[in-house]
Formats: sequence, C-alpha cells, structure tokens
Amino acid sequence: MDMDMKKARASAWFKELRDRIFAIFETIEDESADVPVLASAPTAPGRFETRDWTRTDPSGAPGGGGTMGVMKGRVFEKVGVNISTVHGNFPEDFAKAIPGAADDPEFFATGISLVAHMANPNVPAVHMNTRFLVTTKCWFGGGADLNPAFPREEDTAAFHAALKATCDTHGKDYWERFSKWCETYFFIPHRNRARGVGGIFYDYLECPDDPSFEAHFAFTRAVGETFARVFPEIVRRRMGEPWDDSARLALLRYRGLYAEFNLVYDRGTVFGLKTGGNTDAILMSLPPEARWD
Amino acid sequence: MDMDMKKARASAWFKELRDRIFAIFETIEDESADVPVLASAPTAPGRFETRDWTRTDPSGAPGGGGTMGVMKGRVFEKVGVNISTVHGNFPEDFAKAIPGAADDPEFFATGISLVAHMANPNVPAVHMNTRFLVTTKCWFGGGADLNPAFPREEDTAAFHAALKATCDTHGKDYWERFSKWCETYFFIPHRNRARGVGGIFYDYLECPDDPSFEAHFAFTRAVGETFARVFPEIVRRRMGEPWDDSARLALLRYRGLYAEFNLVYDRGTVFGLKTGGNTDAILMSLPPEARWD
Repeated sequence: MDMDMKKARASAWFKELRDRIFAIFETIEDESADVPVLASAPTAPGRFETRDWTRTDPSGAPGGGGTMGVMKGRVFEKVGVNISTVHGNFPEDFAKAIPGAADDPEFFATGISLVAHMANPNVPAVHMNTRFLVTTKCWFGGGADLNPAFPREEDTAAFHAALKATCDTHGKDYWERFSKWCETYFFIPHRNRARGVGGIFYDYLECPDDPSFEAHFAFTRAVGETFARVFPEIVRRRMGEPWDDSARLALLRYRGLYAEFNLVYDRGTVFGLKTGGNTDAILMSLPPEARWD
Repeated sequence: MDMDMKKARASAWFKELRDRIFAIFETIEDESADVPVLASAPTAPGRFETRDWTRTDPSGAPGGGGTMGVMKGRVFEKVGVNISTVHGNFPEDFAKAIPGAADDPEFFATGISLVAHMANPNVPAVHMNTRFLVTTKCWFGGGADLNPAFPREEDTAAFHAALKATCDTHGKDYWERFSKWCETYFFIPHRNRARGVGGIFYDYLECPDDPSFEAHFAFTRAVGETFARVFPEIVRRRMGEPWDDSARLALLRYRGLYAEFNLVYDRGTVFGLKTGGNTDAILMSLPPEARWD
C-alpha cells in the first residue's frame, strides 16, 4: 500500500473517532437533567462547536489544517477534541530531534487530541491523544491518562484494566512499557508528584512495511475505542455525586498543577507554542478555571 | 570595600524594601472599608504572612534561603513579596550561560521579587524584582512592569513617567534601553501581544569596582523606592471603582495570559522549576484565580 493511502486511512480514522466521541459525550450531556451542576452551567445539554483552521508552512506553502471542537456543557465544564492533518518542512533545528527528519525535513502528521475538564470534582479530567507521523520514517504514537482531583481506586482500576487489555492484545510488553512511560512522562518534577493516576503513553511505533503499519494502526484504533468506552463509564459512575465548595476549590487547585505541567513540561504544548503552532488549538488543554491561592 | 560587605548591604536593602512594602500595602488594606470587594474577600484588612525557607546546595552544603511573604486581602487578592539570599555552585550546564561562571560555578544571589494580583479589575496587577548577583563578576538586575486587564492611559503614563525619571537620574540611556528591554522581554509570542503595558527591565549592570557598585546599587534602590511610591498611587486611584461580572471575567482571562507567560517564557520561573528551586516561592507569581474558557 502506498504512503498516501496510509496517510488517508489514518486521517480518516481520527475524524471517525472524533465524530464518535462527539456523539458519546453529547449523549452524556443529554443525561444531565438531574445531576448536580455549577451555578454557571448552561440549562441545556452541551453541544460541540467546531472551528476549522488552516496552516501555512514557514515556506509560505499551504500546510494543511484542522478542526477544533469545544463543548462547554453541564457535565463537561470544558472539553476540547481537536483533529488535524498537517504537512510541510520541520524547522532545521527541530528536524534533528525527529526520527527520519535529520536529512529531509519534510513531514506529515495527522492525529486527534482530547482534554476534558469536568464540572463535578468527583469526575476525573482526562487526556487522550493519538497520531500518525511521516518523515523518511513513519510511526504511530499516543496515549491516554486519567486526572482525578480525588483519585478513586475503582475508577483508576477500570481505566488501567481497559488499557491493559488493549495493550495485551497488541503487544506482549506494551502495558509494561507504555504504562511506565506514562508515569515517567506525566510527572511534575517541581511538585514531586504525578500529574494524574496514569494510563499509557507510547511513541515511535514504527511502520517500515505494510504489516507493521497495519499492526500499529490497529493498536492505535483500539486505544481510541477503549478510551471512548471506559471514560464514559467512569463519568456516568460519578456524575451524579454531590460536591461542596471545598471539593470544588480542591479541583481548581489541582487544575493549577495540570496547567503547570502542560505549560512547563508538555513537549507538544511547549514546542507548538514556540514554533508558531495554532495557539487556540494547543491551549485547548488548559482548564476553564484554575486557582493558585 | 570587600565583597562580603557589598553582599551584606545589598541583602539588607532588599529586606528593608520588603518591610517598607509590607507596611505600605497593609496601609492600603486598612483603607478598604468602603471599597467594592469580592464576595469571597475577608472582612478584615489583609496582613502579610511570612514563611522562611532554607536551601541546600546540590553539593549538600547549606545554600542560604529566603522568606516568602503573602497577603490575601480585600484590595490585594493575592500579593507575594519574597526575599532570598542564596549561594552555592551553579550546575555545570547552567554555569556556561551565566556571566563569570563558566570557569568557576560559585555564585551568590540576593534579591526581592514581588507580584500583586488585585481583586478589582480596574486596578492593574504588577511585578517588581531587583537582585544582586555575584560570580567571578557581579551585577545588579531587575525591573518593574504594570499588568492591567483594562489599560488606562493615566496609570500607564504615571508608571512610565516615574520609572523614566528614576532612569534619567542614573543613566542617560537607561530609560531608552530598559523600557525597550521590558517590551521585548514581557512579550507573549504565541499570543502576539505584550503581557502588560511595560515599565523597565535591566540586567548585567556590572560592578567591577566600588564606584560602579555604588552607582548601580543606588539605581537599584531607586527603582524599588519608585515602585513603592507610584504603584500605591495607582492602586488608590482605582480601588474604589465599581466593576461587574464581565469585567471580572475579563480579568480572569487576562490572568490566564499572565500565567502562560510565566510558565512558558519567564527565565527565572522556568529555570527555577527545572533546577530544583523553591517551588512555592517561584510560583508565588501565579494568579489566585484564572480562566481559559
């Protein structure tokens, strides 16, 4: 299969997953009539609003683009689901750090990125991102991690078990490697603590031939499908639980840590901001409200 | 005069300035009986609370320390005034970037750092920081910049005029150089906008001999005194003005930009967090509440 077909299939999948997640999250909003909500919450169930953007490569040539999707609802205080398919040439100093780009800076990237900040402090925030990169090499990467202000063993276990089962189906050592990578990556050194309760983080699942492409694409699809099944289960388990002002305050402070991680350490965020990426799409991940008090 | 005396005089000044600012800001709190305040504001005028911290050098030796001062009041939603006097050895990779430290990583640093986030959206936030650094070289640095959610020409002009007068007294080209440096430094590239309305930023005012030490120390004291005079004038001019929910919302979004700058670009913040500085003291600058919605 030629590379154009691989790019098209990956890109189409990320859009399909985005559409499914839109529908699943909007259905949760439809179930919010009797759940506790913020005083500032809308009275109607939330709906995603989308905004397209286009990218110009530093060379001046068209460089693809993407679609931001944001819903500000009753259960989902702010959730962003972005897809993008971009291409062009990496800046010279950056190309050196990218597999397969040192001698030829041309790249293609397509992916989906999701961050949900929930109104109810009992419902964990969550992050999910998967992507397909093409330089002179090509690979899949991604991950999903759970970010509760108040960790609950039942939720953490369910999230981990679902991802572990998906990992185990696709690679004997995947869970061992990718759950550890998640712990290492989503660590906040200056707070000496993890950002959340983990999940998986993977990268550089290289696809030198058709069978490896099919295997890693299948794993990446499975990660998306697993996320789209297990996170809604956790949301539905917790969204009806009441909370008080002190729990909300603890949530807002926890979100401060989340913002710190993304702005100081997250490679995608920092790289994106410093190299002229789409600021609104990159900072979709930031919490709707946070406190450092 | 030997270097120990210079270090002691600089350090004593920063503490004296801190004490004066505590008194001035607490007096403003005492005048808050009839000003509009947040629903969550304390009923009594705010008072500074201090916390001492000590630093251990990576070598394991004592490395000095500092005192955090924080007031959460009625006019000052959150203001931090930190002083510190630290010494030790710069990490090897960092030493290369510091004047006079490439061959001998030993350093001494003393300074004051202040960030005020105000409850009333009509009152600008402000940042002020001055410091004295000693390696095989020694120099003063610092600055002050005004950060209004709603810039008012009268406030900006007063702040600039006071700092310009101070600059003009101490160096013919100081205002020209240091106000430009401030504009360049406090710029948020990914938002393509300035963080605030400027002020001054200066660094590397080197002190190879006693006269240069006295001149640059005098300038640094004058910057602190100017700040301690002009900022309270601006606060008193605006603290009685009413505001509505939409102004508060705009303030919280503006504070989001402020947090972005500090966490992504501010050299002191990023360096401090990544090299094991005192996290609480470094992140004192972050706003008590911010929104990205």
